[in-house]
Amino acid sequence: MAGLFITIEGPEGAGKTTVLDRVVNELRKQGLDIVQTREPGGIAIAEQIRSVILNKENTAMDARTEALLYAAARRQHLAEKVMPALERGAIVLCDRFVDSSLAYQGYARGLGMEEVGSINAFAIDGVMPELTLLFDVRPEVGLARIHHHDGREVNRLDLEDLSFHEKVREGYIKLADLNKDRIVIIDAEQEEGHVFLETLAEIEKVLR
Amino acid sequence: MAGLFITIEGPEGAGKTTVLDRVVNELRKQGLDIVQTREPGGIAIAEQIRSVILNKENTAMDARTEALLYAAARRQHLAEKVMPALERGAIVLCDRFVDSSLAYQGYARGLGMEEVGSINAFAIDGVMPELTLLFDVRPEVGLARIHHHDGREVNRLDLEDLSFHEKVREGYIKLADLNKDRIVIIDAEQEEGHVFLETLAEIEKVLR
Repeated sequence: MAGLFITIEGPEGAGKTTVLDRVVNELRKQGLDIVQTREPGGIAIAEQIRSVILNKENTAMDARTEALLYAAARRQHLAEKVMPALERGAIVLCDRFVDSSLAYQGYARGLGMEEVGSINAFAIDGVMPELTLLFDVRPEVGLARIHHHDGREVNRLDLEDLSFHEKVREGYIKLADLNKDRIVIIDAEQEEGHVFLETLAEIEKVLR
Repeated sequence: MAGLFITIEGPEGAGKTTVLDRVVNELRKQGLDIVQTREPGGIAIAEQIRSVILNKENTAMDARTEALLYAAARRQHLAEKVMPALERGAIVLCDRFVDSSLAYQGYARGLGMEEVGSINAFAIDGVMPELTLLFDVRPEVGLARIHHHDGREVNRLDLEDLSFHEKVREGYIKLADLNKDRIVIIDAEQEEGHVFLETLAEIEKVLR
């Protein structure tokens, strides 16, 4: 495939969206063909799958069912949106991809990274990003940012959640260790302007 | 698990349902706790997944997406219906299971038995049937039975389909060769009474 596939990973509150918007803006000014997306990315079938996952009545949803549904939605988004864009030579910037499933469901939820990896290997059929930028923040910093945004206080439930988010972060760091040639860690606790410049620099490295 | 898990496989027109109904009747007369089911088996989440698969507007459905959705529906049916029944000690007779995905999608559709096997291994997490009865008929015999049932003639499209059904049959036979300890082939071209007796005998063998 002629294009370039780049993914951005990290928890909520890491600033992925804000920085990504700026980066896309900058790259488009340079005349580059950029597709900015995230799953399910407006793909009808993937949206239908997501609505099964998110349906509040589905309290009996098994963790493995959920992981398979995420993999199915990922496959469809990849087949309908990402692959055609790569084939025409575009640069695809995707907010979250396989590493999210590995960190959240494989590692933090305890399904096993290898097992969740196997269904995702089937889903992506060899289409992996050239570069993955991992926006790393401590959970308490990420959570504080979200709450600052929503204008509410951190409560007891959020704090209970903290150990889950610690595990997600641990999972991400493990993935970065295992994939040093693909995953670059960005310190997302820095001032936003620095995160933006570092992100842009990493992307320009692979563009050259 | 205390119960006994048995699956029945084979193409449409092999007579699975008719024979299974008689077998279940017979076993219940013996006072056995029997659960007769097939995916999605009335499980709400599995039904929702099936309706995504079967939605006629979803013409862009990728073959891998479809395989992942089947595996997801299977997982949910297994977790909500089959596993609880096995845990209470019931005999579960399930019309179609993993072998259907391997024969239809893995082999006949060309996704690869091993690949489709890997996502199903994740879905079933070690819960495999003790016994699988493969109802074997030549496709032309199976199709003729369906058409006889529907009261219509075999048409050109059905005949084009024949090579696909030949491949399904080939896939099933390969699976039986690879799993001699689990899969028993039943000649489903025999008169129905014989198929019934043979099926009952095979099930009673594992009951003992």
